[in-house]
Amino acid sequence: MIPDYFKNRKSIRKFLPKEVDSSLLHDILETAMRAPTTGNMQLYSVIVTRSEEMKSRLAPLHFSQPASVSAPVLITVCADLYRFTQWCRACNADVGFDNFLSFTSAFADAIIYTQQLVTIAEMQGLGTCYLGTVLYNAGKISELLDLPELTVPIATIALGWPDEDGVETERLPLDGVVFDELYPKLDENLVKELFRVKDEYPANQKFVEENSKDNLAQVFAEIRYPKDMNENISRQLLEFLEKQNIKLK
Amino acid sequence: MIPDYFKNRKSIRKFLPKEVDSSLLHDILETAMRAPTTGNMQLYSVIVTRSEEMKSRLAPLHFSQPASVSAPVLITVCADLYRFTQWCRACNADVGFDNFLSFTSAFADAIIYTQQLVTIAEMQGLGTCYLGTVLYNAGKISELLDLPELTVPIATIALGWPDEDGVETERLPLDGVVFDELYPKLDENLVKELFRVKDEYPANQKFVEENSKDNLAQVFAEIRYPKDMNENISRQLLEFLEKQNIKLK
Repeated sequence: MIPDYFKNRKSIRKFLPKEVDSSLLHDILETAMRAPTTGNMQLYSVIVTRSEEMKSRLAPLHFSQPASVSAPVLITVCADLYRFTQWCRACNADVGFDNFLSFTSAFADAIIYTQQLVTIAEMQGLGTCYLGTVLYNAGKISELLDLPELTVPIATIALGWPDEDGVETERLPLDGVVFDELYPKLDENLVKELFRVKDEYPANQKFVEENSKDNLAQVFAEIRYPKDMNENISRQLLEFLEKQNIKLK
Repeated sequence: MIPDYFKNRKSIRKFLPKEVDSSLLHDILETAMRAPTTGNMQLYSVIVTRSEEMKSRLAPLHFSQPASVSAPVLITVCADLYRFTQWCRACNADVGFDNFLSFTSAFADAIIYTQQLVTIAEMQGLGTCYLGTVLYNAGKISELLDLPELTVPIATIALGWPDEDGVETERLPLDGVVFDELYPKLDENLVKELFRVKDEYPANQKFVEENSKDNLAQVFAEIRYPKDMNENISRQLLEFLEKQNIKLK
């Protein structure tokens, strides 16, 4: 039997003004380290932000979205090729981890750890929310957290005791996401049918109205994630990677 | 109480010659879709390889490592900006997801889903192993699985009923991975101290001997993940992203 937790899980964006016990947090952070990792290299690091001063400086870099402001703990998980490289340097090993392939390994390690942390924390009754904004301000967040070269903040989790039930949002039908053996041909009619569940979801219909658009796809593509913004942030992010000495050539 | 499963989990690389029931697999794949996802866009797709023919073609692209050969199911999770883009195109939305920022969102979504799948499957008694090789042969794997533009295979999971106990591998000490408020200064002595647990791990000492190296760092940096290989594969991977119409400029 699959535990009900997995079937009902929801992100939480509003937290009680109540601390998360340090020993509970310690156990969650430590247990999550049993998650799989590339070649057992643990190419990630975790910065825990709990002090009021640091929280008040970090939340604005996440555009002060409600979850970032109300959570007692913000956890920034970084792709970290630096610690392993420092170890290799200290051992006279001819290390070359400053490349795109190694970055993808560290990116994957960071997210695997993060999701393990989220699952364990939520199974303890805590609420969490990914702050998708972490890569929008990667450079400034790195400065604030003193991140060295060869590290990139990849995921930030707002964590605390829930002050809301959360909303069970819609998902695409399984046969639009999971395919047997081959990726199918997704023509216009099929793809519209797959996304019908999103078009019909009441909260989404409200977005369309509020934004005076013809349909939900336009809200996503033109309002929430517009091309210009995506491309500007991509450029900044690529420059930041270069600054961190990760080569993308 | 944190479930013991999380404290003891181990990857499995050897599987029984026993099918995974289709309805169990279906439930796992579907439940994992409740995992968090960027803006609820589900920027990932999943290709399930179960037929003998496809398995015999896919495993060699993972260098026929034992887990890839003995698993009854191989699951390839892709960063997928294509399905969402097709939907936007069908809805006359001016979509621009062919950029690095969107790729990082899709990469994160793919790994979040994958790790959720791994956790749910392992809690059902199944064994899993990430095949870190998926990005080494991303181009050929994409051809085999008919992946369209704007998709990139990110993670492959070997899945089946365990035919071994697995090995509980060593991890770095928590205070070498999780930091309070700021990233600390990792000088030569400190980093060597952090990695002592790896140097002292018996299986690692054997690697050093077998490879005639001075220490474990040299085994990792010069034998397992050498600079030249990393850079060659990085170049191929960046070319492949370009071929998939994901811009890295």
